[in-house]
Formats: sequence, C-alpha cells, structure tokens
Amino acid sequence: MGTTEELARYVSSAKTADLPAEVIHEAKRDVINLMAPALFAARDPSLSILLDVYGSEGGKERARIWGAGVKTTLQNSAFANGYLGHLEDYDDTHFPTVLHPSAPTVPAAFALADADAVSGRDFLAAVALGIEAACRIAVATHPWHYDEGWHITGTMGVFGGAVAAGRLLGLDTAGMVAAMGTAGTQAAGVREVFGSMAKPLHAGRAAQSGLLAALLTKRGFTSTDKIIEGRRGVMAVMSAQSDLSRVTDGLGSRWEIFNNGLKPYACGVVSHASIDACVAFKKDGVDVNAIEAIEAEVHPLVLELVNNPDPKVGLQGKFSVHHAIAIGLVDGAAFPDQFSDAHVLDPQIVGLRAKVALKKNEGFREDEAVVRLRLKDGRTLEKRVDHATGAPENPMTDEALSEKFRALAAPTLGKERTEKLLSELWRLDEAARVSDLSVS
Amino acid sequence: MGTTEELARYVSSAKTADLPAEVIHEAKRDVINLMAPALFAARDPSLSILLDVYGSEGGKERARIWGAGVKTTLQNSAFANGYLGHLEDYDDTHFPTVLHPSAPTVPAAFALADADAVSGRDFLAAVALGIEAACRIAVATHPWHYDEGWHITGTMGVFGGAVAAGRLLGLDTAGMVAAMGTAGTQAAGVREVFGSMAKPLHAGRAAQSGLLAALLTKRGFTSTDKIIEGRRGVMAVMSAQSDLSRVTDGLGSRWEIFNNGLKPYACGVVSHASIDACVAFKKDGVDVNAIEAIEAEVHPLVLELVNNPDPKVGLQGKFSVHHAIAIGLVDGAAFPDQFSDAHVLDPQIVGLRAKVALKKNEGFREDEAVVRLRLKDGRTLEKRVDHATGAPENPMTDEALSEKFRALAAPTLGKERTEKLLSELWRLDEAARVSDLSVS
Repeated sequence: MGTTEELARYVSSAKTADLPAEVIHEAKRDVINLMAPALFAARDPSLSILLDVYGSEGGKERARIWGAGVKTTLQNSAFANGYLGHLEDYDDTHFPTVLHPSAPTVPAAFALADADAVSGRDFLAAVALGIEAACRIAVATHPWHYDEGWHITGTMGVFGGAVAAGRLLGLDTAGMVAAMGTAGTQAAGVREVFGSMAKPLHAGRAAQSGLLAALLTKRGFTSTDKIIEGRRGVMAVMSAQSDLSRVTDGLGSRWEIFNNGLKPYACGVVSHASIDACVAFKKDGVDVNAIEAIEAEVHPLVLELVNNPDPKVGLQGKFSVHHAIAIGLVDGAAFPDQFSDAHVLDPQIVGLRAKVALKKNEGFREDEAVVRLRLKDGRTLEKRVDHATGAPENPMTDEALSEKFRALAAPTLGKERTEKLLSELWRLDEAARVSDLSVS
Repeated sequence: MGTTEELARYVSSAKTADLPAEVIHEAKRDVINLMAPALFAARDPSLSILLDVYGSEGGKERARIWGAGVKTTLQNSAFANGYLGHLEDYDDTHFPTVLHPSAPTVPAAFALADADAVSGRDFLAAVALGIEAACRIAVATHPWHYDEGWHITGTMGVFGGAVAAGRLLGLDTAGMVAAMGTAGTQAAGVREVFGSMAKPLHAGRAAQSGLLAALLTKRGFTSTDKIIEGRRGVMAVMSAQSDLSRVTDGLGSRWEIFNNGLKPYACGVVSHASIDACVAFKKDGVDVNAIEAIEAEVHPLVLELVNNPDPKVGLQGKFSVHHAIAIGLVDGAAFPDQFSDAHVLDPQIVGLRAKVALKKNEGFREDEAVVRLRLKDGRTLEKRVDHATGAPENPMTDEALSEKFRALAAPTLGKERTEKLLSELWRLDEAARVSDLSVS
C-alpha cells in the first residue's frame, strides 16, 4: 500500500469513538486557540477587503465568519476564518516543523459543520485527524521544504483541510486518497510574501483548497492516488529531501497533535522563555518598584532578533525582549494590549526596559532562559525556564488558554458573549451541533 | 527597477490603442482557439461536478460558463472556463516552454468583461498582455521548472490571469505588482495528477487565483513587490535555475504571443507533422483506394510515444500515428470525430493503418516528417513537412482555426449558433461589449 493510501485509510476509517480522549481534548484546545486570534482579527480593516469581494460575488449564507456577524458560502467561510486565524501570527506552531496546522484545517471542517448538523465530537475528530495528517506530511518534508522558501502552512496545510472536510463528508479510503490528490496539487505559498496580507492568505487559501478538494471528490472528481509518494508528487517536486516513513509511522498510536504548541504571547517566539520567567515573578508578588537591575541570560538568537531596548511603537515592542520582560513583570501577561503603542510608551514600562541587560549563553536551547532580578535591598531573585510555555515539554495550561481566549475575544464579542462562547467551546465534545456555538 | 515592477509597469501602462494590430489579432485567435475545445468540453460529465458545487454554494449570476447555458460568480466563471478550456488537451502550447497560456488567462479576463461593459478591444488587450506576462515568466524558468515536476500552466499561468484581470480593473503599476505577488504565491500544480480531472483543474484554479488576486488588490490587499525576483519568490523557490532577463527583454517590441501555437489536431503533438502531410495529400485529391503502402519518416519520439498500428478505442487512436495518418488521408482532418470509438474500428481506416510503416530519422526535428505513398500503379508520392501546423514557423491559418472552431463548437451550440458566434468572435475587436457574444 502506498503512503497516501495508508494515511487515507487511517484518517477515513478511524472511528470517532475510538480516538483517545486526550486527542479530542487537544483538538478542542486547538480550536479554542485558533478562534481566539481570529476573533481578535475580525476587527482588522483587511477583513473588509475579503467581505467586499464576497459581497460582490454573493452566495448562499451557509457558514459563519468568526466574529464578523455574517454567514457566507462554505468556501468563503473556510478562506476567511483561515485568514483571520493566522493574521495575528498568534495561533499555534507544530514544533517539529514550523507548520501552523490549525488555520488551514479547523476552518475547512468548521464550514461544513456549521452548515450541516454536525456534532461537536465529529467536528473535533475531523480536526484532530486533519491536523494529524498535515503535521505528519510536514514532518516528512522538514526542514528541506521550508528551507527552500515554502510557507509550509500554505502548502502542506491543504492536507489538513482536505482530510478534515473529507472526514465530515464521509469519504472512504479511495475518496480520501483522491481528495488529498486534488488538495495537494493546489499546495501553494512562498515565504517572499511574509510581512504582507498574503501570508495569512496562505492559510485561508489552504483551508479553501482542502475543502474544495473534498467537495469535488464527493461528487466524483478524479485525481492521482499518489500525491505524496508519486514521482511528480508533492514530496518529489516540493522538497529537496523527504522521509516518507514519517507520514505513517505509528499512525493511531503516536500523535503529532501533541507536538503542536499553542502560542501564549503576542510576540516573537524567542522572547517567550524570558516572559515566562517574568510572569512567574509577577505571580510571586514581586514589586517592580523594588527592582534595581534585570539580567536575562538567553540563547544567542534573542540578541540577534529582538535586541531593542527602546521601541517606539507597538510593532517594535513585539520585537523587543526588553519590552517583553517589562510587561511580563508589570502585567504578568503578553497579550495584544501589552503591545499597544500607548503601552510601549508607558513611563513605568520604559523605565523597566532601561534596567534590562542581556547575557548570551551559547549552550542554551532557543526556548530556555534565566532571568535574575537584583533588588534595591541587595537581594537577587532568579527564575529558570527550561522550556517556554507552548513547547511540547511545557504545554499551555487549559486555564492559560482560557485567559488568552478572553483577552483576544472580548474586544470583539464583549465580555459576556466571550464567557458564553468559551464555556460552550470547553464543552464542544458534548455539543449536539457545532452551529449552536455563539461565535459571531 | 526590479523585474516584477518592470513587467508590471509595462502591462499596466501600455495603451490598448498602441498595441500592434497583429498582437490584438493573435489574442483574438487565442480566444477563438480556447473557446472551441471549451465549448466541446461543456458536454463532458465532469462539468456537472463543478456546477453542482457552484449550485450548492450559490452566488450572483454575473459571468457565463461557455456552452453551459448558465451564469455564475466571477471566480466560478474563471475557474470553470479555465477547466473546460484545458480539459480536452486541445487548446494551445507556447512552444519555447510547454505552457498553455490561454486557459489560465482568457477566462480571468472574460469573467470581468462579461460582467461589466468591457469592449472587445480592451478585453483582447488584457488577454494579449496576460498571455505575454505568463509566457515571459515561463520562459525565464524553462526547462528547469517543468523538469522538476511542475505543471507550468497551473503555476506560471496565475500571472496571466492576474495581469489580464488587473488590466481590466485598471490597476496601476504598484497595483499590478501586488496582484502579481498575490497571484504568484498561489501558483500550484504538480504533474503527478496528469491523466485525471485535476490536470485541467490547474488551469481553472490558476485563472481563479489570478482573478482573485486582482480583485483583492483593487480593494487594498497587500503583497510582496518582488514575487518574481525575490530571494523567496517563485523563481528562487520553484525553479532550479532561472534567467530573469527573459522576463523583460524587448518588452513591447518582441512578443512571446507569436510563439504560442494553436493545436490543430485532437491528438498527441508528435503525430501532427505526419497528419499535415496526409491532409495535404487529401487536398491534392489522392484516392486512398489507390494506395499500396505508406511510409512515414519521423523523429524517434514518434516511435517511442505513438507506435500503435492497431488501436481498439478512440483514446488509443489518439496515441497511434498509424491512425493519425489514416484519418488524415481519409478525412483530411483530425478533430474529435476522427478519434471516436466507431471511427477507430472503421474497416477503411483499419485497412489503411495496416499499410503504414515507420522509418526513424535521428536527424529530424520533432515537428518534421516526410510521408511517402506507394500507389498501386507503381508511382510514389511524397510530402515533406518542415514544421507541423501550429508551430511558430507554421501557424494555423485563420481559416483552419475557423474549421477547428466549427468542428468543436457545433456539437454543443448547433451549426447556426456556432456560425453566429464565430462571426462575432472574428469581429471581437470591434465589439462594444464582450457580454454581447452568443457564447452560451
């Protein structure tokens, strides 16, 4: 049996009831974690560009765009939610690769689930299997594929969308093989567009491509049966090297979804370990007015990428470990509010940033840090972080995820509806219908 | 100025009135040549798969699907017409590459032109410039890109759609740069799916991606300004080598559109020179009953690819040079009718095929052939073809293109409407509105 067929057989035939509870729970966390930045992004002006195109095209109002208060076609819903989910770069990261698996996967499943009477559990199973497929295929191409300049979320993400949608459409093995074929040949997205709206477009387009592939296949559309392993398939064409065994090894027993890290802080990942340390100080009740000096011992990349003691606007604050340390100590959080233009200029934050000294440690992991506070009374406090929050070794707690959701969803939905939706989401595996979610 | 900007500047600022009449005429020929197989394909069962998805999605009825008798959204129209145009593998081939430039380009422009009050001349200018952009970018990546396994029509075709649509939306240079960026990062399509419906999907998807990129850009969507030449742009990521100078050399004075060959016969291109010779015999009035033996001296690829003296069904007939020679002599044509299952089993055709002997000539070009008929009366007749019809050195005549159009469109539109449409198409450069075309 070929790689594509072996993967397709598993994801099409696994029974929802047989999936481990931890896997369903992780899929639920991924959904919550994706909806949070998507709901935040629903107030971004660029959404109106998509909505204007959708309005001019028209279409049946079948599935929601999160936080936008509108329904649209299945394909538009998948596209827009994928776009919104990835717009803030605040969703998730599959650590063995740099795939953001939820943005191209969850929206494809959500569109179908929102339009039809799909149960929460079936939806979550589709999400879990879609993420699993995308991550496994990504692992087989990493690091070669990304290093060549591909945005792996746009490319290999199509498989997540296709599998998740194909699952909800009840595709059998042959159907799933074909859907993966038609999705895979739409894989697209180069890193040259990073820094523009076209980056999150990759995620939206991948969700739409995967969904479209499943919709076409369901009606008899044909494709290759070897999109992964074929001589002109995605591995051969899009990756200098690949390891096919990683696609199927331990299918059903070993889960890549547990290697998907939820992003806890709204800034560059290399600052996260330092923030963790500072949030811990805050929880201990450390008074920032008592601090004389701050030393952060960090991986060399921190000095290379985020060494900016004096950011002037919010966006610069996201690339300043000095700012990240200050807000960790003051706010105990690093949500978008902490990176506002006003907050970056806050005198207390500015003052703290000036006390930060960086110390490079070549022996550290990228997600490792030690922060030392020298207090005015002469004492020194130290916090060591072995793995930043969000790493597989140190996953974000459900509680922290709820906090992230609240911080990001409330500006769009208001506090009350945010709490209602959050509560519904945590019980999504028991929900009779995904369409009952109060998501817009 | 970068390559992307230089190309964008030309295609956005060139005045329609300043384009050479020969270029507009060639664009018109490309439109006629694409609509012909698309109208033929409109009776293919796979179209109902697309129409069923479109029906379930709904949308404003703004632009036609050729021959289908329906209007749909702009994006669906572009997708479906691109799909239909390439489904029969009977459209065109840009000889310096193997790009089929019309299928991803013309439908993107047609959707906008059909929905709005666009004149025939502006439409043709958009088509000409879109094809020019796609072909030039393709040339810069050929043969490396295709050899890696990419279906260049799906990948570089997006630029044709984006430029053609961007032109009709009035994008300025910066807008065209951005539209090319957002289109280019959607470039997709691997050769593994050849032989399935997913191959023509590439053309449809490219037309849609290009159109979508232009629609988004018009509303303010941002992208890279270096999609062609950037360090992570399409050349660097999707082609082992590239020659950027070919994108812009002689812009406005040297036209790649003249290197786009229209496919005269409904079968594999390596048989075309032999068919040309036989059609010429037929025009001379050669009586097939007088033929004792047939010798075809051909390029070695002919023996490798289409050496089948005894095909049993129509599809096999398309890959039999023996059949191609027989129908050339009997019918003086090689339209889909000549490759029907019934025609392949016609005793007269079968008998003639048995008289064919192939002679390999290593020194021949691929599109070169000599066919010799030994007649029962002892005479020998010979026809030499230096370049098969459709090659840049031997373009299909307007008259032959009309015959192709008639043969392909009539089964769908009927003879009367076919003649009406054909007449409208030949006067398209004078038409006030593209939407007046009697195309469905």
